[in-house]
Amino acid sequence: MNATQRIEQALANALECWETNGIDPPRLAAAMRHAVFPGGARIRPRLCLAIAAASGDPDPDVTDAAAAAIELMHCASLVHDDLPCFDNARTRRGLPSVHTAFGERIAVLTGDALIVLAFETIAKGAAHQPERMLALLLTLSRGVGAPHGIVAGQAWECEPNVDLRVYQRAKTGSLFVAAVTAGAQAAGGNPIPWQALGERLGEAYQVADDIRDVVATAEALGKPVHRDEELGRPNAVDQLGLDAALERFDSLVAKASAAIPRCAGAPMLRQLIRAEAQRLIPEEFQRRAA
Amino acid sequence: MNATQRIEQALANALECWETNGIDPPRLAAAMRHAVFPGGARIRPRLCLAIAAASGDPDPDVTDAAAAAIELMHCASLVHDDLPCFDNARTRRGLPSVHTAFGERIAVLTGDALIVLAFETIAKGAAHQPERMLALLLTLSRGVGAPHGIVAGQAWECEPNVDLRVYQRAKTGSLFVAAVTAGAQAAGGNPIPWQALGERLGEAYQVADDIRDVVATAEALGKPVHRDEELGRPNAVDQLGLDAALERFDSLVAKASAAIPRCAGAPMLRQLIRAEAQRLIPEEFQRRAA
Repeated sequence: MNATQRIEQALANALECWETNGIDPPRLAAAMRHAVFPGGARIRPRLCLAIAAASGDPDPDVTDAAAAAIELMHCASLVHDDLPCFDNARTRRGLPSVHTAFGERIAVLTGDALIVLAFETIAKGAAHQPERMLALLLTLSRGVGAPHGIVAGQAWECEPNVDLRVYQRAKTGSLFVAAVTAGAQAAGGNPIPWQALGERLGEAYQVADDIRDVVATAEALGKPVHRDEELGRPNAVDQLGLDAALERFDSLVAKASAAIPRCAGAPMLRQLIRAEAQRLIPEEFQRRAA
Repeated sequence: MNATQRIEQALANALECWETNGIDPPRLAAAMRHAVFPGGARIRPRLCLAIAAASGDPDPDVTDAAAAAIELMHCASLVHDDLPCFDNARTRRGLPSVHTAFGERIAVLTGDALIVLAFETIAKGAAHQPERMLALLLTLSRGVGAPHGIVAGQAWECEPNVDLRVYQRAKTGSLFVAAVTAGAQAAGGNPIPWQALGERLGEAYQVADDIRDVVATAEALGKPVHRDEELGRPNAVDQLGLDAALERFDSLVAKASAAIPRCAGAPMLRQLIRAEAQRLIPEEFQRRAA
């Protein structure tokens, strides 16, 4: 199986545990499926798999569980971010957002259930490797919870005084760092050399997100645009101007590539980062990000 | 330390990890504290501790982590249940509910962060006992997630056709079963003999909740009353009448006591159940529940 197939299969397996018993609350089950399938680029689980592969990937079941858990957390955060009290986004990935399709109550519960499922997926998938299970659980909670994870990042949006770097590192960077860390840990490797790669990618992703919010169309993006301006949130294009934001993106992508430790998987990782950089920036601006 | 002190200390320890670094988003940190302290009766962690004690409690650190995790999940569920899109409860435990005090966005994030913290607490507290850690993680995810946990219970409220027993078992019973199961597992014991006790207590608790919603005052309860009628939710008093509901409560409490397995801790557990039964029903109705 290639990476895409492994990720989709691992996510399907995680959700299936809940569905085969036939007594799920049906709307919750449908909403969870809607939140996870079809996915976006699956960049975080892709990174997780790539770094595990670069570390030998001796136990693919553990790696698959780690990759699925990271993506489930990402999906949970999107469902809650889209809620009326946050971004109030009616679309996501070109489809109705979960609360648009299933109502606000089911959307809150879907996020909750996906967070629980992420931890359950690690517990089940790494049960035969207790040390790796523990490491992955702590990576997951650090990447998602307070004080540094995506939940904390979202909470900084409710504060009057915000350190932009701390906010963006928590909101976007933390799950990228978790993805690369989990990839190394799932393979029994040392996650420390990979951390800088996760950090740079997280920063690059945040800048790209800011750029797309300003220059892309809702059709191309599959979700509302100009949200940062409407919601008064910091945006790299507003702060630096479009040219400087694009330059910053290029520079971060270059730094991410340079941060890949010397290993057999390095060319494959560089290729992954190049492809992702192209996907993240609308075509007419890609000359810079080539 | 007595049970109360152990529980409060374990919860304080769990929250402290997030607070000592000083860079928490301050409103999220305050809201999490508000959601957990001061607590209610802490009946679930009390049960967890009592059953671990009845099983010898060989490793109190693991037991404390399990008890704290169960209570953190309970607090998370209250925060999300109180949200405007669910119960829209402006008070809880006699104080403003989390969304009333901190706003809806922080309330959503507080619930999320407490769920993550519950898993993290198990991972950290049982790291030296990998088998127990795994058992506790699965107990926690089963008690909280879909298809049988409290999230699923809440989701049944969004369905047109509901089996009342399945709904109540998930919404209330699941975390009681998780509490007794976790108590046995934390002590390395067999959880199966304890399951019936958790189920009966969960049912009794649900009936008591229904009774109080009808007969208690908001002042005495510290939260809004008559919510089931307003929200069109099933309530044992509406279905059976008050007398029969009180009889059902008495019968469930008696069944819970009878379900305690033969063990050294049985008298202490019976005493705990008696005290809890008295606390759950307003004084003027306690003749029946004596």
